[in-house]
Amino acid sequence: MTVAFRRQDALSLDAADPLAPMRDRFVLPEGVIYLDGNSLGALPRTTPAHLADVVTAQWGRDLITSWNRHDWIGFPMRLGAMIAPLIGARPDEVIACDSTSVNLFKLIAGAAALRPERRTILVEDGGFPTDRYMAESVAALVGGSVRTAPREAIESHIDDNVALVVLTQVDYRSSDRADMAEVTAAAHRRGALILWDLSHSAGAVTIDLTTCDADLAVGCGYKYLNGGPGAPAFLFVARRLQDALPSVLPGWMGHAQPFAFEQGYRPAPGLARHLCGTPPILAMAALEEGLGQFDGVDLQALFAKGQGLGDLFIQLMEERCAGHGFTLASPRQATARGSHVCFAHDHAYPICRALIERGVVGDFRAPDLLRMGFTPLYTRFADVWDAVETLREVMTTGVWQEDRLQQREVVT
Amino acid sequence: MTVAFRRQDALSLDAADPLAPMRDRFVLPEGVIYLDGNSLGALPRTTPAHLADVVTAQWGRDLITSWNRHDWIGFPMRLGAMIAPLIGARPDEVIACDSTSVNLFKLIAGAAALRPERRTILVEDGGFPTDRYMAESVAALVGGSVRTAPREAIESHIDDNVALVVLTQVDYRSSDRADMAEVTAAAHRRGALILWDLSHSAGAVTIDLTTCDADLAVGCGYKYLNGGPGAPAFLFVARRLQDALPSVLPGWMGHAQPFAFEQGYRPAPGLARHLCGTPPILAMAALEEGLGQFDGVDLQALFAKGQGLGDLFIQLMEERCAGHGFTLASPRQATARGSHVCFAHDHAYPICRALIERGVVGDFRAPDLLRMGFTPLYTRFADVWDAVETLREVMTTGVWQEDRLQQREVVT
Repeated sequence: MTVAFRRQDALSLDAADPLAPMRDRFVLPEGVIYLDGNSLGALPRTTPAHLADVVTAQWGRDLITSWNRHDWIGFPMRLGAMIAPLIGARPDEVIACDSTSVNLFKLIAGAAALRPERRTILVEDGGFPTDRYMAESVAALVGGSVRTAPREAIESHIDDNVALVVLTQVDYRSSDRADMAEVTAAAHRRGALILWDLSHSAGAVTIDLTTCDADLAVGCGYKYLNGGPGAPAFLFVARRLQDALPSVLPGWMGHAQPFAFEQGYRPAPGLARHLCGTPPILAMAALEEGLGQFDGVDLQALFAKGQGLGDLFIQLMEERCAGHGFTLASPRQATARGSHVCFAHDHAYPICRALIERGVVGDFRAPDLLRMGFTPLYTRFADVWDAVETLREVMTTGVWQEDRLQQREVVT
Repeated sequence: MTVAFRRQDALSLDAADPLAPMRDRFVLPEGVIYLDGNSLGALPRTTPAHLADVVTAQWGRDLITSWNRHDWIGFPMRLGAMIAPLIGARPDEVIACDSTSVNLFKLIAGAAALRPERRTILVEDGGFPTDRYMAESVAALVGGSVRTAPREAIESHIDDNVALVVLTQVDYRSSDRADMAEVTAAAHRRGALILWDLSHSAGAVTIDLTTCDADLAVGCGYKYLNGGPGAPAFLFVARRLQDALPSVLPGWMGHAQPFAFEQGYRPAPGLARHLCGTPPILAMAALEEGLGQFDGVDLQALFAKGQGLGDLFIQLMEERCAGHGFTLASPRQATARGSHVCFAHDHAYPICRALIERGVVGDFRAPDLLRMGFTPLYTRFADVWDAVETLREVMTTGVWQEDRLQQREVVT
């Protein structure tokens, strides 16, 4: 006979968790169970002081000389080198810059220029909209076209006309995790390039761009990397492509010699050509501190914990919220998921609002998903228990029907 | 007989200056005369506390709910409305977003799409390089071409093939100020659109985009707007063009309904379509405080003071540094200048370094320019006197020949 999982069991898991002390590195408000770190990562405790130092002692005191004195000019590369181990890249294959959206445009347009004889960009149906919008914009500019295919069947749609496949490793809704090695190999077999969107996976699941021989990637700095709202994003270009991939947003900071102010554009060697404009130093300082939280952390143990939190959430939802109309909308198998889990419910929106009112912060994704993110750096097993218990109360009391709020949704 | 201007006269000007108290709103390090606010504006005194509040009380405490609770989602528009009066625009004609480089690309590509039958983008010779690089990238993408013309003769090069004229109001080196009304009218007479780059003028000289009937503009947040290193830039689109101008960087935040996550892109009405990715909130908070320094300031008096500072610098250079090989490389007439002044010298680079070593921070611009910026919010007439005196000592002692430093140049 199976003994049901109890809160005490969750507390025992936390007590035995070698990563549990990491939580103290973050500011987490009293009375809140924060399951939205997949949308906006929590504030590291050290960020306010670090940012204050950059503002006051660097900008305020050293002013323009900080570009050299504090190596502001090297910030995008330095942050890239910090991100690299989280995604299985080499330090010179990643830079932090611009937004994920802008970086998508840069790399999609660059890839299209690298494969001019192929006219199709292949994107998934139902993925995060920006990826598709950007592919369509590039296609319209260069006279190509966009083809879409279901995520699970993407490989079979790669043909000799496909210049580039754009695919998200972990889907922002279902949490479905693609097999990066397999899809990359399939693209390469057909002569296509592949661009991985790591927005919902970087810092949360194992990624090995080098082993997969991936071509291009982008990702987000404000989710699992804890860089703050609207933090700089990153982009990855495999070494073997760096000198061939053109810069379609050729700003002065991506020039081989920015301070020569030459009238003709000469791309910087390597990744720096994608820098475009002047880097946002204050935002980069916050991202630096977010990335610093991974220092000394066993990444495999961290990602395994995230999976364990998701597994427990699924288990408890099915044990304790059965009969309330929830249907698992994410892969049951942890290795096929990212670090968030969705359940579908016909009334997901008011239920989500009722949870937030009661201090359990997850989010709603249209049309019917309740999405909960498990950031292994600061989420406890007891948080998962308590979140499910709060949800159970919301459902058994029917309170969610009473306080349907009219607030606007929060940002992904 | 003319009596030579003395330091006492500069002090008298400061004593009589109703704008003098504004200087106390900024952090300015002891022993430094900062004449590089045209490159990186100084730190407003209130910025550290404001930023700390956004970091700690908004991001840290309210987390994802801040997008609504603190209206992060409205930040780009709110900042745009603060910038609008500085450039003679209406509040709904300006948004803060991305970098100047990225915004140039957006608007140049958008304009090219608005005038598809015209294949030429006209840019000035020798302007800030990014403007030209971006025009060339757009032209390469859409199969058009870029034509260049001397700044002073730009009007005569606008013909029926020109879709767009890209011109900087105030040149980053010479400080030459274009006649915005005249050039705009010339472009319109020939059916072309015009995009003004206000990077070196916004917050420093009178700009009236509405009266000039300008079409498009971009500008920088980290120079005279004091938004911090790499601050968000801004873009302007005249109301009459907003619904026609397409977004070529169609990110999810520029969608008519971002949170519907629709698979098809539908541009937001008005300017919001140019938002692209998630806005950088921390950087926006710093820019907000920079813009706040213009509250209650008589802009015409402010800009007149900037002109007066430049006039005094020219006068003193010619009176007190005569015979040392400096040649004025900016317009003598204040109304034909921005708020910085350049002198050419064969040894401008080591002279600039020697000045910086002695606490007078201006900058060098290749090949031979010593550039000094006069930010009227915090520069005193006595600073101008002292800067010229320091330069005179550097020249008369020849000390600049001794300490040629090998540091890299600083950022524009």
